[in-house]
Amino acid sequence: MITPREIIQKKRDRGVLTADEIGAFIRGYMSSGIADYQVAAWLMAVYLNGMTIEETLALTREMRDSGKGLDLSSIATKKVDKHSTGGVGDKTSLIVAPIASACGVTVPMITGRALGHTGGTLDKLEAIPGFDPRPSPDRVLRILKSAGAVIMGQTDDLAPADRRIYALRDVTATVESIPLITASILSKKLSEQIDGLVLDVKTGSGSFMPTMKTARALARSIVDVCGRMKTRIVVLITDMEQPLGRAIGNALEIRECIGFLKGDGPEDLETVSIALAAHMIRLGGRARSIGQASKMAYEAVSKGHAAERFRQIIHAQGGDARVVDNPDLLPRASNIQEFRSRSNGFLTRCDAKLLGLASNTLGAGRNRVEDIIHPAVGLYLERKLGDRVKRGEVLCQIHWNDESRLRNAMPLIERAFETRTRPVRTRPLIHAVLEG
Amino acid sequence: MITPREIIQKKRDRGVLTADEIGAFIRGYMSSGIADYQVAAWLMAVYLNGMTIEETLALTREMRDSGKGLDLSSIATKKVDKHSTGGVGDKTSLIVAPIASACGVTVPMITGRALGHTGGTLDKLEAIPGFDPRPSPDRVLRILKSAGAVIMGQTDDLAPADRRIYALRDVTATVESIPLITASILSKKLSEQIDGLVLDVKTGSGSFMPTMKTARALARSIVDVCGRMKTRIVVLITDMEQPLGRAIGNALEIRECIGFLKGDGPEDLETVSIALAAHMIRLGGRARSIGQASKMAYEAVSKGHAAERFRQIIHAQGGDARVVDNPDLLPRASNIQEFRSRSNGFLTRCDAKLLGLASNTLGAGRNRVEDIIHPAVGLYLERKLGDRVKRGEVLCQIHWNDESRLRNAMPLIERAFETRTRPVRTRPLIHAVLEG
Repeated sequence: MITPREIIQKKRDRGVLTADEIGAFIRGYMSSGIADYQVAAWLMAVYLNGMTIEETLALTREMRDSGKGLDLSSIATKKVDKHSTGGVGDKTSLIVAPIASACGVTVPMITGRALGHTGGTLDKLEAIPGFDPRPSPDRVLRILKSAGAVIMGQTDDLAPADRRIYALRDVTATVESIPLITASILSKKLSEQIDGLVLDVKTGSGSFMPTMKTARALARSIVDVCGRMKTRIVVLITDMEQPLGRAIGNALEIRECIGFLKGDGPEDLETVSIALAAHMIRLGGRARSIGQASKMAYEAVSKGHAAERFRQIIHAQGGDARVVDNPDLLPRASNIQEFRSRSNGFLTRCDAKLLGLASNTLGAGRNRVEDIIHPAVGLYLERKLGDRVKRGEVLCQIHWNDESRLRNAMPLIERAFETRTRPVRTRPLIHAVLEG
Repeated sequence: MITPREIIQKKRDRGVLTADEIGAFIRGYMSSGIADYQVAAWLMAVYLNGMTIEETLALTREMRDSGKGLDLSSIATKKVDKHSTGGVGDKTSLIVAPIASACGVTVPMITGRALGHTGGTLDKLEAIPGFDPRPSPDRVLRILKSAGAVIMGQTDDLAPADRRIYALRDVTATVESIPLITASILSKKLSEQIDGLVLDVKTGSGSFMPTMKTARALARSIVDVCGRMKTRIVVLITDMEQPLGRAIGNALEIRECIGFLKGDGPEDLETVSIALAAHMIRLGGRARSIGQASKMAYEAVSKGHAAERFRQIIHAQGGDARVVDNPDLLPRASNIQEFRSRSNGFLTRCDAKLLGLASNTLGAGRNRVEDIIHPAVGLYLERKLGDRVKRGEVLCQIHWNDESRLRNAMPLIERAFETRTRPVRTRPLIHAVLEG
């Protein structure tokens, strides 16, 4: 029998672990036979020495099988989830779940909290009064059957090994590892028996994969592993150099989603959301081509079916669905302050990371696990990259509650914007699409 | 303020940590603000990415200063310690401490337990009835003043950060790292205010530094760091391809030491012991040259002064000093079995690692911290590398107590020896001497 130390040592020495060794290590950790510090040392060895696709596959399987999973066999339609590697203003999950569901796809969506400078879908949903992000497994089934979609947090049944390992990675500087990210995303998603997955890998300064090279490597790894696990996958690599849409912050983003589902959304948000939704519809077997699927997605919005689904999802999860018709029921910040341009020209920087940090500094995110989210605060961008701006024009609205937080956020906001006399070339919104 | 995660991340990304960062990290660990798992991840990053001499120096200082240390300022003579990186049959500490002390050098020697396939000086000493390896600081001073030498285990006052970190390295496969070994050895040794240190770096299959390249790199690192800490150091790189001397196992090695101090010892043990003792005598200011110091060391043995010192040390530390005159008072195994050669020729393998493992399997060492040492068991080599052997001649005596342990040790002993028709070229005993 190989010991935990020998498994760490093998990876330390750039060896390739067998599926049995990875299995013994993860099961040993979950049964407390292997300590946190041994897993931490192993994670650093994996971070620095990497893993083969076979190893990543074994790790994904083992983490997926660490919990009971979600039994969705009583639902006959195809189940498709969507995941994003995290960005600023990235509220597409809240848009694509109702659209895909309105088009006949079942969407069991597992989502997370704000992390670092990025926002979290669960935190956004909690801005809706009464919304329950942790329904019981029975209730998940009932919600899926009534609303066609559920948006919920990870539970103890869903890849608990991923939860424990993720918490450890967070405090040991081992987050940004392609095999570990691959296993984390897929173990969680595949624990709910989905037929297909659409993954949005963000690239750019506001993402966790700043370069196209790392974004592509992550996409490739996920496509390869997912393919071996007999689940269809489409990965879109999309841009996160500036925030997506105009709203950053929980209630503000819900409001923007509602606007979008009612036919009034910013163009970049539309481009990315419709592309993601279309791939979900196609993987869910409701369309033959992306063209047809896109048309269905647009129609779900224009005919009001998606907004109706959003109402149903909120209602089924205990939230106040009246917000869809009256967004003023959402929490509102006590103060709104305008941030204005000091020069004429073109906006050449609208930095996603700095604006995400600024929003989180205002209270939209957490520095520590125990921090409380302020649902109403955040930023609303009046200008975006490439826009012509005049001195004195409003660049963004700052929604704030606490003066000291505002003071800390201001330097970040100031550094986030830059104006020049000539516009810079805009980056594409969708850099690449990979399919498994 | 840099966070623990940022310190881990910096080393992960091959950055160079400042002395302040290393200080904050080690102090944070000792005050429980930094968790075991964070230190474990950091140790793996150090293992894989290395450390500069400046970083190693800062780590050594911080670990040295983690405890009260041993105040030896009331002793006017020069204090010199000796350390070995660990080998099989390596009982030189027990020989050089009485010799150097008999020559006027004060020897405050901190030593350790059996580790892996190697033996531990403390375990050997505990084969002497009554011997106390953990005298109080006051008693240490009294012993040093009366016997001129003390041989003791690491206490909570002596570099406690090293103890905690060493325990963590042991279970996270981060032992064999040159900067970590350097800091571990020197922090401990320099916590006792010595004027000089003689280090025996073992190289060969039975050592932790199998190649000359790694042995030299470790020696260089220790000489560099020790020099910056204003302590004189001599490093000898000595051979550990076969066991040193003939005895392996605790009581058997004590018996061999006593024989040596009375003028009857194997040649290889003599060569290495006299060289180490001579360097201690010179660093201790008792001789101008190595030639003169060697002569003094030989005389200390031939005139019986060293044996007398050994009696005094044992007595001062509560042990039964009569063993020096009557080694039969040492524990003896219930059975002795001969292991014989199956062919004629020259002994071309007498593998230190396998023989060390065999001796530990018989009960001389530990597999787990809680295992109990059997002081009497071990091996006594009748033939060594290069010796001419005839079929049926005894290669070694096996001293054993437990039949199942004997069964497990036999295959190791069988693999340890090899006979060929021509002798192989013998390796030098002392490969190199470096001085700081």
